[in-house]
Amino acid sequence: MNTTRPLILVTNDDGYQAKGLKKLVSLMRPLGEVVVISTNQPMSAKGHSITTTPTLSATLVNVEPGFKEYVCNGTPVDCVKIGYQWLLDRIPDLVVSGVNHGSNASTNVIYSGTMGAAIEACMDGINAIGFSLDCYDPDADFDHLDDAIVAITKEVLDKGLPDGVCLNVNFPKRSETPFKGLKVCRQAKAKWVEAYSECQSETGGTCLKLGGAFIFEDSGGDTDYEALQDNYISLVPTHFDLTAKQYMEPMRRFENLVFNNHENQG
Amino acid sequence: MNTTRPLILVTNDDGYQAKGLKKLVSLMRPLGEVVVISTNQPMSAKGHSITTTPTLSATLVNVEPGFKEYVCNGTPVDCVKIGYQWLLDRIPDLVVSGVNHGSNASTNVIYSGTMGAAIEACMDGINAIGFSLDCYDPDADFDHLDDAIVAITKEVLDKGLPDGVCLNVNFPKRSETPFKGLKVCRQAKAKWVEAYSECQSETGGTCLKLGGAFIFEDSGGDTDYEALQDNYISLVPTHFDLTAKQYMEPMRRFENLVFNNHENQG
Repeated sequence: MNTTRPLILVTNDDGYQAKGLKKLVSLMRPLGEVVVISTNQPMSAKGHSITTTPTLSATLVNVEPGFKEYVCNGTPVDCVKIGYQWLLDRIPDLVVSGVNHGSNASTNVIYSGTMGAAIEACMDGINAIGFSLDCYDPDADFDHLDDAIVAITKEVLDKGLPDGVCLNVNFPKRSETPFKGLKVCRQAKAKWVEAYSECQSETGGTCLKLGGAFIFEDSGGDTDYEALQDNYISLVPTHFDLTAKQYMEPMRRFENLVFNNHENQG
Repeated sequence: MNTTRPLILVTNDDGYQAKGLKKLVSLMRPLGEVVVISTNQPMSAKGHSITTTPTLSATLVNVEPGFKEYVCNGTPVDCVKIGYQWLLDRIPDLVVSGVNHGSNASTNVIYSGTMGAAIEACMDGINAIGFSLDCYDPDADFDHLDDAIVAITKEVLDKGLPDGVCLNVNFPKRSETPFKGLKVCRQAKAKWVEAYSECQSETGGTCLKLGGAFIFEDSGGDTDYEALQDNYISLVPTHFDLTAKQYMEPMRRFENLVFNNHENQG
């Protein structure tokens, strides 16, 4: 490949046939050399799951000038890992993931395979962006995102991101009103309250089907969930340090616990 | 069940037969009513993955006074979710996960099914602790943890944890020297550099086997990785807000990007 153009690795968690992936690939190709490594099946809600058994493989399904496409039997994070640890001959300049069919704003980021892939690249010091649309429809309209995705991507390619930070970008679904703009946000506090129901499995047994409702528990007007509701694109600078730093001091009481480990030592 | 004693949900990611799970169950039973919901197979490195297909089920395999044990075909996070959304008749007072065979200090927390389960409970406002031993051996010695696990658990049962915070507790493996004590730490910055190798899959094809080395990239003496190396128990107050707050202001330059979405609107 021509190494003078940026190398962009594209992945997703909705599988290689997803409309959102095809949209993202079409937008990236004018911006650089593109290698797609996508999952061979939908892998939504796989979070940061990786394959530790010796079963992982990737098949090259398409080669064109400046473009290669692989399909992988692993998770989105596997796709990123084998990308630059196995398939590619150089480290990509950028990893983009999506466009996800469904919002990854708020605590959805924790479950998201799309964002798992972006965070993995970020952990390895590579610029990364996860793009998601607030619409689960497999045939969702993505055309209203074109200009914004290209503008955000160019900005990251030009100026980079801080070390250890990737972007979680969510778009409102298409409506009659154009976006109001883009807002830099924090991750909203919210949760899913599940409602499992019994159903029949394919093998005839009883199993549980996941349903539920998303409960927004935040406020302040500076959250990604609120920005999306207000027809803004939300952008959350996202890292992988889960330390609740403001609680380190209060937790020092655990250092005063008295316990004996001498008697159990060999 | 007797509702005057605390209800403790125990899960793990090494499967229902793991020695670390059995140790944790034996330590929890004197402290409350215990319900175990463990995975039917090893689920290490499944992160926050959940099962969205209608395939999830749990089998009751053991009932004794004050004790029930289920085995579930899902991930550790599924075990927690179906616990209080389906199997239990009340919300547990505490969710404990582990004792994991292997460290979940540093960035291992991102991949960890053990910590995925604890974080899920935390997202739902339930006190939660993940316990891990810095030793991958399936037959590892866990007896030196007894007093410390009980002391930490009692402290959490007595005084609770701040809303939105769970504990990531890692223990040094057994050595001839007792622990020096417990340190409240931040998550160390580190990464895995993978080294995939080709191998034969069970079906005869070529596949990739995950190997690699853990690279510590931090310093300061206040990290969980360093505490473990120095024979301290590490305790990291852990939350689920991935916002890199210190980078919100610098990222506002993205709000100034010019892009057109009018022409693409219907």
